[in-house]
Amino acid sequence: MSLYPNLKIVLVNTTLPANIGSVARAMKNMEIEQLCLVAPARPLDENAFNRSAGALDILDNAQRVATLDEALVDQHIVIGTSARNRKLPWPMLNPRECAVLTHKAKLEGKNVAILFGREDRGLTNDELQRCNFHVTIPSNEAFSSLNLSAAVQVICYEMKMLMEMQLGEGRVSTVFDFNVDLAADLASQENIELFYEHLESTLSSIEFLDKNNPRQLMNRLRRLYNRSHLEVIELNILRGILTAVDKKAGE
Amino acid sequence: MSLYPNLKIVLVNTTLPANIGSVARAMKNMEIEQLCLVAPARPLDENAFNRSAGALDILDNAQRVATLDEALVDQHIVIGTSARNRKLPWPMLNPRECAVLTHKAKLEGKNVAILFGREDRGLTNDELQRCNFHVTIPSNEAFSSLNLSAAVQVICYEMKMLMEMQLGEGRVSTVFDFNVDLAADLASQENIELFYEHLESTLSSIEFLDKNNPRQLMNRLRRLYNRSHLEVIELNILRGILTAVDKKAGE
Repeated sequence: MSLYPNLKIVLVNTTLPANIGSVARAMKNMEIEQLCLVAPARPLDENAFNRSAGALDILDNAQRVATLDEALVDQHIVIGTSARNRKLPWPMLNPRECAVLTHKAKLEGKNVAILFGREDRGLTNDELQRCNFHVTIPSNEAFSSLNLSAAVQVICYEMKMLMEMQLGEGRVSTVFDFNVDLAADLASQENIELFYEHLESTLSSIEFLDKNNPRQLMNRLRRLYNRSHLEVIELNILRGILTAVDKKAGE
Repeated sequence: MSLYPNLKIVLVNTTLPANIGSVARAMKNMEIEQLCLVAPARPLDENAFNRSAGALDILDNAQRVATLDEALVDQHIVIGTSARNRKLPWPMLNPRECAVLTHKAKLEGKNVAILFGREDRGLTNDELQRCNFHVTIPSNEAFSSLNLSAAVQVICYEMKMLMEMQLGEGRVSTVFDFNVDLAADLASQENIELFYEHLESTLSSIEFLDKNNPRQLMNRLRRLYNRSHLEVIELNILRGILTAVDKKAGE
């Protein structure tokens, strides 16, 4: 049983199977169990099994999907790992805050996905813009790229450590304010993506979206909505508005 | 410049050069620079350099010694990494407390060595008994053995994180009480080892030490003294007592 059954570690386009094995070991060491592999470059091999050092159950039970969309369908909070100082500012967490957020989400029955990108270049900006939060492991500015499994180790260590501290102190610190009401009926990522598609389509049909340079506008809108952690009822309202606009535009 | 110039990461009898490379990367990611290799099984090779991912300076500048004694000569506080539930009880730290202790030691100009054992079986009981503290990374009781570089990553991450939190809050928490006065003139490990040799010799010459079963007695004494963090003046007094006893025994 995972310490955090609401938590999914999502590896996006991992190049080396050996690294996936190391991630499985790091997760199992910290009692984190759900792994999801999004389009790994190569199938799992001997190297992966050897590096897992016996965490074969994590590998065997890993979810395998072709796209990030599939990985995120039933998730409520999406957190992307990234280096500091990205050009697009985003709500930031450190690994300790990430653990507290995951813990609070668990208490409210909300699912959390933490995304880890490619060994050589991490997550793309598009992927990072799918996230509600970014988590950054503090590191040497001149040498900031951690090994993939080392990053997973640190993130999962904070989860395990939080549980240890909680057992010791009887409660989880509520120092951090994440600006998200986890008790609310949060919309699923699947429905949020459908909303963004609808929004883009509508903005295009009303000729607000410049098709020659569409990206920046949608990214800004994503940032806005992801920061607000849309609830089901809010999403329904927004979709209703778009449908109303579509109707007008089609007249 | 290392975040903690008073800190030395000591790898004891590491089997795989690749793991030493991974350790160098993990250290450099967290701005920890002094590495000491005690009798590695094999010389550094291509695997080590590749896995260091460019942390060649850490490998190049690593201290190389044949024995743990040599590694610890000028150290004041020795911390051994170990799993929980060792039979011999010892003052225990978690990785966060280990970072706070290292930080306080730095402020007082005291050197700290953190020992990491062999990939397959960690530190020996003899090596663990050389330590003032043991540090345990919380983990899955049914799957507790972390990869060597993953363990170094977690320990060094807490050092970096402490520095980040300190920059944020302007001070280091003083919640932990380590029962060691770091402002005191602590004896060096070299002189402490000379004292233990002297003690063992004296106990033998006065026929208090049973040569057929000498180990347990010395271990208990080590535990007692290591817990007390001997100061220079105290060590001089103890040595003086032993010399006086020797003189008596020689009469």
